Amino acid sequence: MDARSKTAARVHEIAPFHVMEVQTAARTLEAAGRSVIHMEIGEPDFPTPEPVMAAALAGIAGGGIYYTSALGLPELRRAIAGYYDARYGTAIAPERIIVTAGSSAALLLTLALLVNRDDQILLADPGYPCNRHFVRTLEGEAVGIAVGPESNYQLTADLIAQHWTPRTRGALIASPSNPTGTTVPWGEMESIALAVAARGGALIVDEIYLGLSYAGQPRTALALSDEIFVISSFSKYFNMTGWRLGWLVAPERHVRDIEKLAQNLYISPATLSQRAALACFTGETHAIVEARRDEFRARRDFLVPALRELGFGIPVTPTGGFFIYTDCSGFGMDSERFALEALNATGVAFTPGIDFGRHRPEAHVRFAYTIARPLLEEGVHRLARWLPTLRPQ
Amino acid sequence: MDARSKTAARVHEIAPFHVMEVQTAARTLEAAGRSVIHMEIGEPDFPTPEPVMAAALAGIAGGGIYYTSALGLPELRRAIAGYYDARYGTAIAPERIIVTAGSSAALLLTLALLVNRDDQILLADPGYPCNRHFVRTLEGEAVGIAVGPESNYQLTADLIAQHWTPRTRGALIASPSNPTGTTVPWGEMESIALAVAARGGALIVDEIYLGLSYAGQPRTALALSDEIFVISSFSKYFNMTGWRLGWLVAPERHVRDIEKLAQNLYISPATLSQRAALACFTGETHAIVEARRDEFRARRDFLVPALRELGFGIPVTPTGGFFIYTDCSGFGMDSERFALEALNATGVAFTPGIDFGRHRPEAHVRFAYTIARPLLEEGVHRLARWLPTLRPQ
Repeated sequence: MDARSKTAARVHEIAPFHVMEVQTAARTLEAAGRSVIHMEIGEPDFPTPEPVMAAALAGIAGGGIYYTSALGLPELRRAIAGYYDARYGTAIAPERIIVTAGSSAALLLTLALLVNRDDQILLADPGYPCNRHFVRTLEGEAVGIAVGPESNYQLTADLIAQHWTPRTRGALIASPSNPTGTTVPWGEMESIALAVAARGGALIVDEIYLGLSYAGQPRTALALSDEIFVISSFSKYFNMTGWRLGWLVAPERHVRDIEKLAQNLYISPATLSQRAALACFTGETHAIVEARRDEFRARRDFLVPALRELGFGIPVTPTGGFFIYTDCSGFGMDSERFALEALNATGVAFTPGIDFGRHRPEAHVRFAYTIARPLLEEGVHRLARWLPTLRPQ
Repeated sequence: MDARSKTAARVHEIAPFHVMEVQTAARTLEAAGRSVIHMEIGEPDFPTPEPVMAAALAGIAGGGIYYTSALGLPELRRAIAGYYDARYGTAIAPERIIVTAGSSAALLLTLALLVNRDDQILLADPGYPCNRHFVRTLEGEAVGIAVGPESNYQLTADLIAQHWTPRTRGALIASPSNPTGTTVPWGEMESIALAVAARGGALIVDEIYLGLSYAGQPRTALALSDEIFVISSFSKYFNMTGWRLGWLVAPERHVRDIEKLAQNLYISPATLSQRAALACFTGETHAIVEARRDEFRARRDFLVPALRELGFGIPVTPTGGFFIYTDCSGFGMDSERFALEALNATGVAFTPGIDFGRHRPEAHVRFAYTIARPLLEEGVHRLARWLPTLRPQ
């Protein structure tokens, strides 16, 4: 092999998104005139709320789209702090809030701050694949811990204690989770925070789906301790995916180092996105995104029982986000083949488990309810006609 | 120390931007009613061109600000390819162009692709500090090579050959350079490309200031070989800093792996920024940014001789960008103290050399000509009154 073709070892350990192959196959079908029901898409179908679009227009009219502070516009940091108080009853100093270039950058900053080479970060498997890839990119080691319905597909304090080693630097929890839509119960989150703190580790909690919670008043891990790192985003609850804006709440003593990292790694988040995001924290936008949250809940309330009826295993009812992680092992083939055959036979697209880790991915597929209910109903209807035609295992 | 306070080793090796301290001091002076001449600012003073702003407005009206492909909008990739052909006479396949979340992300992707832990990347010292910090963040080793006027403050093929070790993965050249504004002569760039290729290494060329070239028709390193990685940006020549958009041109066989890294590290560049950037490649915008380039050149033509007249050493006339790296050792104090004393005495702000490396930073300061000529003249006037009052060394 030509020496110039060499790529770094990490590249071989970072998997592509298999959902992209599903999407490519789905688009090929559509180009051939087939109707496709997209239950593979990991972003809200709702457009950016109108007040946010209006704020972006005003932001352009205001001109001067220069760099901002690496930590973000001070007024946006204050607005996010106010939101924690108003929505979650948790007071956070604006100085602890770092506006980031998407939650991706929040994760990059946090892990760059904390993880030395070969340090381990504990994660749930199945989980969001980028998380382990960030750890690997920084030459740390992501330790995927197999989780299942017995722990709501989440880490527990006991699992963390069992897997902690001298090399463990911390744990990363996503609650609600992608792909499982499950939430860490509050009592367990308290135990996790204590278990991590007792070991001198760092707890990182990904709350990008927290606003989309369907089981009572959600709580932020920030209420537990000033030592927890919380990752969040404007993408999901506020329907701002393409704006690439998120935030990080960090222990105050780390903010100076995080600023230094942000200055070096991306300079500042997109200015116009920040100006637009200021409109997220108005009553008008609140009403819009809460109504959309209710619609997501209604879709979940339709789709979970409908998939169970079809024979998909959903042992834990998802309580947040817009994904359902289902056991498809009853259909007699591995999940990658199952997803492709379903797509070809019915035009229904969903994501094979292999995107989410190594713990029984062949037995699972993820459905997203990021399309309108009539389309979900059509998808279920198509699957209901096709699944009985499969040969028994 | 509380174990939870531990930060990763890299954090201690990543320096803050000292220019920020100068800016903070400058703003304190301004808040106290003093007039400050800002020659420390590293971004163009020109606003985003009007056609680009108009395209952004239309982009909002178009709605649907969702994720794009991780590689960027296909039409933008094609437009950038067309630009290389029209501007530089170099044909580049659009498939080789990856639109990125600022040139920062282009650098992150390239280094994540290439650099294993402890791999070395050769860089000029003085140079742009983020470059070495990116290498360090990925657990590689940035090897700063001392350069001075004898090589236009740039690496040469000979320097690369002298410093190459079994651990060297490649070299990163910035041409024109920040902080020196100097360009690698074309013959030398050819020699560098051959020297790196002969050693099986990777050559990365940062061309973010290439559009702002003042000495004849600039040439892109892409004309030399399809094996070179080129980093570029909409920030400088197109005056789009706050939009956080750049691009990378990579060897075609690496694009799939780069896509995988981009999907994981930031998902996609900001959608609206991409729609706006499409307007960069129109005749109307071209006329605007070329006129601004002429203005930058006129500022350089004023400031370089004026600073020389004051006693600053500028042994190589800068040929691009908007920085002048000057030897201030004749004024009898180290550059950090000199910059702060100048600010306090005259209100003229500029950047001490310590931001740019370890090779004689105490003897250098960087001036930026990102302000209008009357302000540059006023700055020179103030320095001309103050410098003679300094005690001889």
